[in-house]
Amino acid sequence: RSGEMAKLTQLIDNEVFRAYATYAAIVLLKMMLMSLITAYFRVTRKAFANPEDTASFGKGESAKKYLRTDTDVERVRRGHLNDLENIVPFFGIGLLYALSGPGLSMALLHFRIFAGARILHTFAYLIPLPQPSRGLSWVIGYVVTISMAYQVLKTALYL
Amino acid sequence: RSGEMAKLTQLIDNEVFRAYATYAAIVLLKMMLMSLITAYFRVTRKAFANPEDTASFGKGESAKKYLRTDTDVERVRRGHLNDLENIVPFFGIGLLYALSGPGLSMALLHFRIFAGARILHTFAYLIPLPQPSRGLSWVIGYVVTISMAYQVLKTALYL
Amino acid sequence: RSGEMAKLTQLIDNEVFRAYATYAAIVLLKMMLMSLITAYFRVTRKAFANPEDTASFGKGESAKKYLRTDTDVERVRRGHLNDLENIVPFFGIGLLYALSGPGLSMALLHFRIFAGARILHTFAYLIPLPQPSRGLSWVIGYVVTISMAYQVLKTALYL
Repeated sequence: RSGEMAKLTQLIDNEVFRAYATYAAIVLLKMMLMSLITAYFRVTRKAFANPEDTASFGKGESAKKYLRTDTDVERVRRGHLNDLENIVPFFGIGLLYALSGPGLSMALLHFRIFAGARILHTFAYLIPLPQPSRGLSWVIGYVVTISMAYQVLKTALYL
Repeated sequence: RSGEMAKLTQLIDNEVFRAYATYAAIVLLKMMLMSLITAYFRVTRKAFANPEDTASFGKGESAKKYLRTDTDVERVRRGHLNDLENIVPFFGIGLLYALSGPGLSMALLHFRIFAGARILHTFAYLIPLPQPSRGLSWVIGYVVTISMAYQVLKTALYL
Repeated sequence: RSGEMAKLTQLIDNEVFRAYATYAAIVLLKMMLMSLITAYFRVTRKAFANPEDTASFGKGESAKKYLRTDTDVERVRRGHLNDLENIVPFFGIGLLYALSGPGLSMALLHFRIFAGARILHTFAYLIPLPQPSRGLSWVIGYVVTISMAYQVLKTALYL
């Protein structure tokens, strides 16, 4: 019945919850990938944040020069923080949305568009693509999350 | 029965879980609002982090001067990061707490105080209000989350 | 039955879910502790980010000198951000994993190793210990989370 939350007994065999689990895992793994890309650029650009990370390059002044910021490293870090700012709300609001009993096709639409938009956002940030590629992909993910939040509040509101 | 977790079959029609869904959505939306405020200040203060974002202001040196930090932009960004550091634990611990079978009035007390404190925190950060406004609102949200974590560990502890 | 998700009716009395709740609460509390350590270093090092935070040290130029970065404060902040980047995926993927019906001993193995690795990571970052202490503890937590994500996708995949 629309407007009511699904019974949790039906939940885990529920295709909506399986779809949520799938897309949530995908975007969280995508976010985790940013750590590896940051590490890759730190090593190849020799740009580190901690003195203990540069010890293998020698002692004293010779190692100190690798304690620096690098534009490529900083770009990946901004992309990573943007993921935290956007994928965390998707995970949280998406979980509540998946529990609020949406139709399967509507839920899949939300999850697929969000995941696609965030993957595009990462390419737009790292290549980088000219604007408004990054801006648009950010907006699309944002609007999808707002749409799910609206559905959650419409279904569950209890102040 | 106190000390036991509620059966999940009763959960989704459960007023505690609906209250959790409501307040979790509210504070996640509030956190997302910080992105819009950051964008607003970046555009009005003309202070950007990426060269591709300044391309519409012209080429070369004329655009480069907009690649800079701005005190208002940085203030909003600190507020946003503080939200991540505090609203994420609330979301996670609050979910486990809502599943641990608390009384409705006690749960509502936790959720309402947390949401109120974080909204106050944002105003205190952005206006800014003199200290200890921001500090106190941060502490209140922190203590509420610790109180829920204590309840979760008391109910569910399995090491 | 392996390959099927556990029925949620059995969930909350389920030892896997109680174990998840316990370790998730522990690592989220550990992450929250970073805020207190940051505050401790800001106060003892007199290094603040906001003018309103230095008002108690006097007015004008005498207070302005405390608006600065400090290497100890920045180190704790990097550790805190690293927690967000790693504990948030653990919380999300771990929740889906706990709902995907893993065996208790395998689930406990994942949760215990992750929690131990992240606590070690914090000590390695803050003391600091020589590398590869911090790097290894980071990798271990990362691999545990990937392993849980693999299990989630194998069980729930619905694209």
